[in-house]
Amino acid sequence: MQQQPLQIAIQGARYAFSEMASRQFFGDTIEIVSCRAFDDVFESVINKKADYGVIPIENSLTGSIHRVYDLLLSNDLFLVGEVVLRIEQHLIAHPGVALEDIRVIYSHPQALEQSRNFLASLKNVEAVASYDTAGSVKMIRDEGIRDAAAIGSRWAAKDYGMQVLKAEIEDIPENFTRFYVISCEKKTFGQANKTSIVFSMKNIPGALFKSLSVFALRDIDLLRVESRPLRGSPWKYIFYLDFAGNLDEERCQNAIRHLEEITTQLKVLGSYPAATDNHSSFE
Amino acid sequence: MQQQPLQIAIQGARYAFSEMASRQFFGDTIEIVSCRAFDDVFESVINKKADYGVIPIENSLTGSIHRVYDLLLSNDLFLVGEVVLRIEQHLIAHPGVALEDIRVIYSHPQALEQSRNFLASLKNVEAVASYDTAGSVKMIRDEGIRDAAAIGSRWAAKDYGMQVLKAEIEDIPENFTRFYVISCEKKTFGQANKTSIVFSMKNIPGALFKSLSVFALRDIDLLRVESRPLRGSPWKYIFYLDFAGNLDEERCQNAIRHLEEITTQLKVLGSYPAATDNHSSFE
Repeated sequence: MQQQPLQIAIQGARYAFSEMASRQFFGDTIEIVSCRAFDDVFESVINKKADYGVIPIENSLTGSIHRVYDLLLSNDLFLVGEVVLRIEQHLIAHPGVALEDIRVIYSHPQALEQSRNFLASLKNVEAVASYDTAGSVKMIRDEGIRDAAAIGSRWAAKDYGMQVLKAEIEDIPENFTRFYVISCEKKTFGQANKTSIVFSMKNIPGALFKSLSVFALRDIDLLRVESRPLRGSPWKYIFYLDFAGNLDEERCQNAIRHLEEITTQLKVLGSYPAATDNHSSFE
Repeated sequence: MQQQPLQIAIQGARYAFSEMASRQFFGDTIEIVSCRAFDDVFESVINKKADYGVIPIENSLTGSIHRVYDLLLSNDLFLVGEVVLRIEQHLIAHPGVALEDIRVIYSHPQALEQSRNFLASLKNVEAVASYDTAGSVKMIRDEGIRDAAAIGSRWAAKDYGMQVLKAEIEDIPENFTRFYVISCEKKTFGQANKTSIVFSMKNIPGALFKSLSVFALRDIDLLRVESRPLRGSPWKYIFYLDFAGNLDEERCQNAIRHLEEITTQLKVLGSYPAATDNHSSFE
């Protein structure tokens, strides 16, 4: 009996990095529910149009995606997993085409920008902005354009029957994006060893120091902390905090209860297994 | 005797948000040195091709720009000022053109994305990606295209003799970017009341908690804290921290000296006057 493939909602077109993160987490037997915006990913999961959502939360070069945190705060979904994906860019063209033949390179401006040094090394080549990376690959394939290339993923190249003319043309190889897997239900994919919370604090002296003390006093390792100003009058701040442990552990429950004494708002986003290259702490 | 206008290096084309931040800080009698990349902004300031650089460091929706922090760490420049700019998008067309006449809207994909709800409300209008917002305004002006509009800034509209057909079309009005003003020399533009530092920590238990204690013990308000994983083997973390005060104050000097006891690396980026809507703390 064949199993139904899991439906995974992502923001973006086919072959977006979110699709690759989904395949890295769930394997290849999934069906992608492509959504225009992050809001739609959440809606798809809430309305059971998808089994899970996979959403980027942080990039090692460009920082946290606060918009996604906002959606995690305003919707009651569970974080059930984490994926860390290396961001790579590849130059893709028709089979048999050589680099010297290329006169135009199409891609999303972000992909063009990330490959700036490579593009600068080429002579007489024009970079042209397009809406999406895989769409550019498809366009030069469909129209049989042999003096153009696109910047996109290996998978797009393979599925469209195109060749990777030059692999990993991105300027900075240490470019990683962290994704969360979101679900309507509490699920476990292995041993949960990491917990993410969001909180805001009472306006008391040394509030942040006190809030971190609830973990330090219980020898709980912190994995991430970030303050985010919320504009209004006066400024308010919220904090993103990840710690090692899960909420089945008594010391973690105690820390959260203690933290609640000094916060105005606290939301546990979920406990989940940390992505495998993501285990060290800074404490 | 007329004064020479200040040369301000920014990343991006004319009318980029960095230019507006520069005008907000220095006034209108400046000359913009337009640079292709953040690296070039730093180089321009170091090589005295520009008097100052103005660089984005953090956006309220999309997070910290780690790339700029890297450049602040690897170059010995001083932070001498801070600007907070609201990010607005405007629909721009030829004077006399009505919204109903528009069939195509050009802009950078980021500006299109930020105006998604507005674009979705229009019928029979195609959104087309372009390289830069002001370039799109110039293009429809130069080519006399009257059934197209561009998304860009008020200043671009004004300088190119075009009209703002619809103002503030961005989906999320609470979109702010924080910029730093960088200089080769320590300068002061008013009373410095904020200091930014970056540090990494020894691998000791409760290290972050201890590092924040050096401020809490001296009643110094923290204005921002963010951990950033640095990939390698094993993971290392660095921290961005802003606090209220400047390094002429003895308690701040003491806190920094105390912090040096438990950090592996510490760099003071500068003390400067906080941008005016940026005064509250979370402590």
